[in-house]
Amino acid sequence: MTAPSQRALVPFVSVEHMMRLVHHIGLEPFLVDLAAQIEADFKRWENFDKTPRVASHSKIGVIELMPTSDGELYGFKYVNGHPSNARHGLQTVTAFGLLADVTTGYPVLLTEMTLLTALRTAATSAMAAKHLAPENARTMAMIGNGAQAEFQCIAFKAICGIDAVRLYDIDPMASRKCAENLKSSGLEVTVCSSAQDALLGAEIVTTCTADKQYATILTDNMVGSGIHINAIGGDCPGKTELHPDILRRSAIFVEYPEQTRIEGEIQQLAPDHPVTELWKVISKAEPGRTSRDQITLFDSVGFAVEDFSALRMIKQSLSGTDFYIELDLLADPDEPKDLFGMFVRARPE
Amino acid sequence: MTAPSQRALVPFVSVEHMMRLVHHIGLEPFLVDLAAQIEADFKRWENFDKTPRVASHSKIGVIELMPTSDGELYGFKYVNGHPSNARHGLQTVTAFGLLADVTTGYPVLLTEMTLLTALRTAATSAMAAKHLAPENARTMAMIGNGAQAEFQCIAFKAICGIDAVRLYDIDPMASRKCAENLKSSGLEVTVCSSAQDALLGAEIVTTCTADKQYATILTDNMVGSGIHINAIGGDCPGKTELHPDILRRSAIFVEYPEQTRIEGEIQQLAPDHPVTELWKVISKAEPGRTSRDQITLFDSVGFAVEDFSALRMIKQSLSGTDFYIELDLLADPDEPKDLFGMFVRARPE
Repeated sequence: MTAPSQRALVPFVSVEHMMRLVHHIGLEPFLVDLAAQIEADFKRWENFDKTPRVASHSKIGVIELMPTSDGELYGFKYVNGHPSNARHGLQTVTAFGLLADVTTGYPVLLTEMTLLTALRTAATSAMAAKHLAPENARTMAMIGNGAQAEFQCIAFKAICGIDAVRLYDIDPMASRKCAENLKSSGLEVTVCSSAQDALLGAEIVTTCTADKQYATILTDNMVGSGIHINAIGGDCPGKTELHPDILRRSAIFVEYPEQTRIEGEIQQLAPDHPVTELWKVISKAEPGRTSRDQITLFDSVGFAVEDFSALRMIKQSLSGTDFYIELDLLADPDEPKDLFGMFVRARPE
Repeated sequence: MTAPSQRALVPFVSVEHMMRLVHHIGLEPFLVDLAAQIEADFKRWENFDKTPRVASHSKIGVIELMPTSDGELYGFKYVNGHPSNARHGLQTVTAFGLLADVTTGYPVLLTEMTLLTALRTAATSAMAAKHLAPENARTMAMIGNGAQAEFQCIAFKAICGIDAVRLYDIDPMASRKCAENLKSSGLEVTVCSSAQDALLGAEIVTTCTADKQYATILTDNMVGSGIHINAIGGDCPGKTELHPDILRRSAIFVEYPEQTRIEGEIQQLAPDHPVTELWKVISKAEPGRTSRDQITLFDSVGFAVEDFSALRMIKQSLSGTDFYIELDLLADPDEPKDLFGMFVRARPE
């Protein structure tokens, strides 16, 4: 038998290889580059074929496919959300993704995306805050100290210049884990005993909690004027984090309204409540923050374009490294019409 | 570093392993078992979460995601269709698929599906013909002798008892390749010089051509009474194979009307033209063929449930074999909330 041709082999980045690649580049430079690539793709938002994710809901979780394409590359992510997984020693969210060449339909990259999703979510949050948070913000309250928390803190340091974080989680162990992980990050870290305490002096508040239910992590009286809220935990129907009164006081920015109205904090508001698309702020078609006292809210649910940017960056970064293996994922008969002949010739002697 | 736990590793079946697995089981027994599993899943059709495939069309092809779930397992297939690929030595259709546990959202199988799609398409066609073709059919005309053709012929032999095939393709090389591949199959093989010639004496006609355009492989005058037509080449908007007059003379059976009305031969008919869902015939809720003279047409576009059956069968068949490798696809920190800690501990010395 002849070996499959190069085009039939798809580079695969395992979790182990992804960790090594990010360490090789450096976490902060990686996040800065990723945020720049996401920002560049938001600037050319209209080039993307956009569709709400395709979700398969069960009683205890959801499995989603998130595809998009810019006409040259096609990307999609498989991602699950199962809050009960943590009780069984499993990840709440796991993901993998694929990039393909639109011209041939052939995949060009398969990669883990559990880690990469945490990185792209953090990079997107910080990139949005760069456009929306009050100038010279230095302190972030981080409510919810689970798997995503440290990535958010490091991204806001690298991209927005935050130098202090105030941590709160209903589970004190989670805050301790987060503080321990951040101890050599260069951030001043304070573990707080309540969400209200965490908000003291913070110009930015990030909420990232995981219960699949309507929760109220922040109530109206806790949120003062001038704050930027980065709400990333509410991301499916029935799962929200903010009291609706906060939403009514805020200028609301979203990734893709069609999806956010179903999955984001604004599912609590009227379907025609005004929101601004983040890409319009980035491309200067709409204003971002318009006054120092304004409350800005990035109601983020995660969108396929962010995964696309991340997949493309990984594809580019692999070049010249050995942080991948090649998978024989595609059938590649010598004569394209002779799939059967290839099969027959593979018969063991 | 500790090795990832078993649950973080996903079995992966490469093209090479798939070919070895099918040879290990034997092609005909594999197709018979697969047809039985697809039939069993069609019988419990209402258990499946069904949705039309999610297609991303470009000028020269399409990339599709086809998900479904029975509430216990979730499966999806990535598949492209690029007719121009053949001119560049590439496959028109390549595919891979994934099966996941609905309870955790964790993938349990990743596999090539280029070969597996050819197998499940052939198994589905023959399973449908078992319910629809005239009794004691012995000869099949096979129009379009590309990558799918031999699989169809073998499946109709193994599942419907066909013992002769009459081949026609606009490209005589394709027919010669097909005849050569079938020479030790036990089928009597005749290469024909026209579609009309191929139909002589055939009780079943399978059309499987690939041009992305409205084509007319069969015209009305070619199709006599009592024939079963298995039309599998027309499977996206603008791509059909049969003259609409044939459709109007036929009892039409489809997989999933919502999808077939967009992608199948019946896109040429009024949106309320009567069709019968194949699963209703299989579960005896609707009649199949009602007379010897009737023309029956299986307007097949391929549906996610067929891929689901195939994925589950592969998952079962792997047990106790070494026809797979395990991929480190899922991040698996010892402490689920400590994704960042896992990343930090992976830093090279």
